[in-house]
Amino acid sequence: MIGTSGVRAGDNNRDLYALVEEFFRTTFATDNALITEAVRRMLAAGGKRLRPRLTLLAAEANGADPEAQLPLAAYMELIHVGTLIHDDVVDRADTRRGVNSTAVDYGNRVSVLAGDYLFAWIFKNVTASYPAPIPHILSSTLADITDGEVLQLRALGNLELPLAGYIEVVLKKTASLFAASAECGAIMAGASTLRVKALRDFGLYFGVAFQMLDDLLDMTASEAELGKPIGNDLRERKMTIPLILALEDATPEFRTRLERHFGDPDGPGAGEAIRALVADVGEAGGLRKTREAIAGYVERAKMSLAPLGSVPARAELAALADGLSRDSIARTR
Amino acid sequence: MIGTSGVRAGDNNRDLYALVEEFFRTTFATDNALITEAVRRMLAAGGKRLRPRLTLLAAEANGADPEAQLPLAAYMELIHVGTLIHDDVVDRADTRRGVNSTAVDYGNRVSVLAGDYLFAWIFKNVTASYPAPIPHILSSTLADITDGEVLQLRALGNLELPLAGYIEVVLKKTASLFAASAECGAIMAGASTLRVKALRDFGLYFGVAFQMLDDLLDMTASEAELGKPIGNDLRERKMTIPLILALEDATPEFRTRLERHFGDPDGPGAGEAIRALVADVGEAGGLRKTREAIAGYVERAKMSLAPLGSVPARAELAALADGLSRDSIARTR
Repeated sequence: MIGTSGVRAGDNNRDLYALVEEFFRTTFATDNALITEAVRRMLAAGGKRLRPRLTLLAAEANGADPEAQLPLAAYMELIHVGTLIHDDVVDRADTRRGVNSTAVDYGNRVSVLAGDYLFAWIFKNVTASYPAPIPHILSSTLADITDGEVLQLRALGNLELPLAGYIEVVLKKTASLFAASAECGAIMAGASTLRVKALRDFGLYFGVAFQMLDDLLDMTASEAELGKPIGNDLRERKMTIPLILALEDATPEFRTRLERHFGDPDGPGAGEAIRALVADVGEAGGLRKTREAIAGYVERAKMSLAPLGSVPARAELAALADGLSRDSIARTR
Repeated sequence: MIGTSGVRAGDNNRDLYALVEEFFRTTFATDNALITEAVRRMLAAGGKRLRPRLTLLAAEANGADPEAQLPLAAYMELIHVGTLIHDDVVDRADTRRGVNSTAVDYGNRVSVLAGDYLFAWIFKNVTASYPAPIPHILSSTLADITDGEVLQLRALGNLELPLAGYIEVVLKKTASLFAASAECGAIMAGASTLRVKALRDFGLYFGVAFQMLDDLLDMTASEAELGKPIGNDLRERKMTIPLILALEDATPEFRTRLERHFGDPDGPGAGEAIRALVADVGEAGGLRKTREAIAGYVERAKMSLAPLGSVPARAELAALADGLSRDSIARTR
């Protein structure tokens, strides 16, 4: 989670953010103290709580009291936290992921169990307290997230990954949870099928733009903002959107440098190679084209909201989406 | 999973085993090919399919067609498979867990994702196709399993772990899934509350006896049967039932040897120390007392079945429980 300044909260959004934080601070606890602590640490590391805010705004946009959906909104963030805990499981002991790694503090075994427990605890609560199709949406979403992460792992270092392949991964690993967050808020507010779909679509497009911004930040933010070195995705041989778009107009030298780096991503010259590749991506238009792609998905997200009419929550949702676009512009100036 | 000869299948049980195997071979597939393959490999490594057999027998004992519950029975085994895949995640690369380790073949990251996907896929299907409270029972059970595994991790090397602490861990990490397997079979057959509880209790006691036998085998079976070295639990500093019961009558020398080994469980003399400790456990009556404890839980399991009357499936369930007891006798002669 990157603490960007771009997704700025309006007054109401700031209230929703505070509501979510308050809920976590006062109400969240599982029956397992070790796991509660691991989750609290992960939550304390920051985050804009965008997923729960989508749930609350989707409920509000359909005439419901957002506060009544705080627990459901919190489960959305906790699914995200569970995936972060599992993301920290490493194949060899290292500390490259910074201070917030459960795996580094507790070991891989505990990270796996903590994430498993958290997922199971969420489903246990959701199946006890929410009607169909909420439990099904949440479990389908977790299946999508992990499926997307497996697809992403298989695409590591694949220079031929087409844009459509990237979008498939992102729809599953990132956008599905934003879509479910908005969809479930609308469902719990008793919204019509059309309005539920509108909010699901908003979440989906918002999620794609969010991931694209995340990819962009990996090449343009400072190490202090990221909590990890710039170009970390390149070190992990991830095919991110700036890289894929830059490859459309890559010079032979750029392509050769990339192939050489992917052949030895942890070698002695890796730091130097990554800095050169980040410059290559910029020169080939990868950052600019990513900014344009983000703007396109932000537009689609906002257009999806048409069925909501002119309720205030619609403007809040649109403002969250515009924040992604604004941030991408600030980063590529 | 240990291929014991003790849990022998009667004719009908053999049919149920074959039904489950056939179902996995012909019908099981997830939407992710890599994960389907990982699960199939884990299934091919063996196993008696006791959990699905409890589901099918519980349905049959209440007048339902067991075949109709094959998918639900399969989910019970697949929850177990998911926990095995996650058990294989290691803190450092090693191959001590033998040939069936997903982590060794694919790496920790893939093991974590494969298990996550499998759990989510199960819940996705169960929430789509089964009525309350089945989805809630399954997710609560997975929460119990992981909670129990965390408790077990925290108790590693704790010589003062009381018998009640061991039982708490086993009820959660092992018995809960056997209990859920039998309970859900009964629920789907439309059984009365009393009969559902009878089958849940059977599964719970059966599960405790099953885990105690597993602990016993770790000290008495051959390396070929176990697929790992004898005394592997001691190497992992697990507080198993033979060890806990042996400590009740431990000589000072035995206790000192144990403390020394737990202080350096992977040291150069560990193999020798483990062999000596296994002998110590036997001399202090740990194996005999474990056998007696298993017999006690088997009796309780069988007594739980009283509300079923004299249906054939009751005799089959009792035979499965007796198999655990018989096996423990064969191993401690």
